[in-house]
Amino acid sequence: MAYGHSATFAQPFAEVLGSVREALAGQGFGIVSEVDIAATLRNKIGVEIEPQVILGACNPTFANRALAAEPGIGLLLPCNVVVRATGTSTVVEMVDPGILVELTENQELESIADEVGLRLAAAMEALRAAG
Amino acid sequence: MAYGHSATFAQPFAEVLGSVREALAGQGFGIVSEVDIAATLRNKIGVEIEPQVILGACNPTFANRALAAEPGIGLLLPCNVVVRATGTSTVVEMVDPGILVELTENQELESIADEVGLRLAAAMEALRAAG
Repeated sequence: MAYGHSATFAQPFAEVLGSVREALAGQGFGIVSEVDIAATLRNKIGVEIEPQVILGACNPTFANRALAAEPGIGLLLPCNVVVRATGTSTVVEMVDPGILVELTENQELESIADEVGLRLAAAMEALRAAG
Repeated sequence: MAYGHSATFAQPFAEVLGSVREALAGQGFGIVSEVDIAATLRNKIGVEIEPQVILGACNPTFANRALAAEPGIGLLLPCNVVVRATGTSTVVEMVDPGILVELTENQELESIADEVGLRLAAAMEALRAAG
């Protein structure tokens, strides 16, 4: 996917979700938002989809630098990490922070996006190593 | 801004934030996430910025259609709406859902992004008319 990175795990959804939280914390990301998209669709329009949660990962130091460089960057924060069940597998997707540079065309964001991207990649690698 | 639409209001932050919630609800958007970015920066790294909240606006019908067209679209959901104080004014920014098409290059998302964009524009227009 052009806007993120994906990995598939054999463990069940709830277990992977817990591991993702730990892996993100290990790289300095707090979870500042959490959307249970399956529950939202069930409750609001009665549609059933497989379990799916959107976690909003935020490293406050990088967020602060990004806001100083681009005051409107809140529209593209936090960095989303999706955990979703697909049959017997669980997919983890992490947004590519490079989209912040692509969409804003603000080169000041490039080093920030690079650093955040490395940390997200390290979190994904930790998940793969444990999985 | 290339990735969203912005308007500035003379009313104080808290008042505009309430009006934004109402305007989004009036266009069928639920608020599925809310990040108080100023509180996050204060609590986590001791940095003071002006009041700023990132609202995650989600119309479940459109979200469901988007997920069917692009399973990884959760990485770019919900649609962010930022309310932030700047001096004596309050800025409201709404993401342009066209970025979903731009980043995924999935043309199936185009009509969905167009419809969501019209609804966000209507919410902004309602704010302008009231402000």
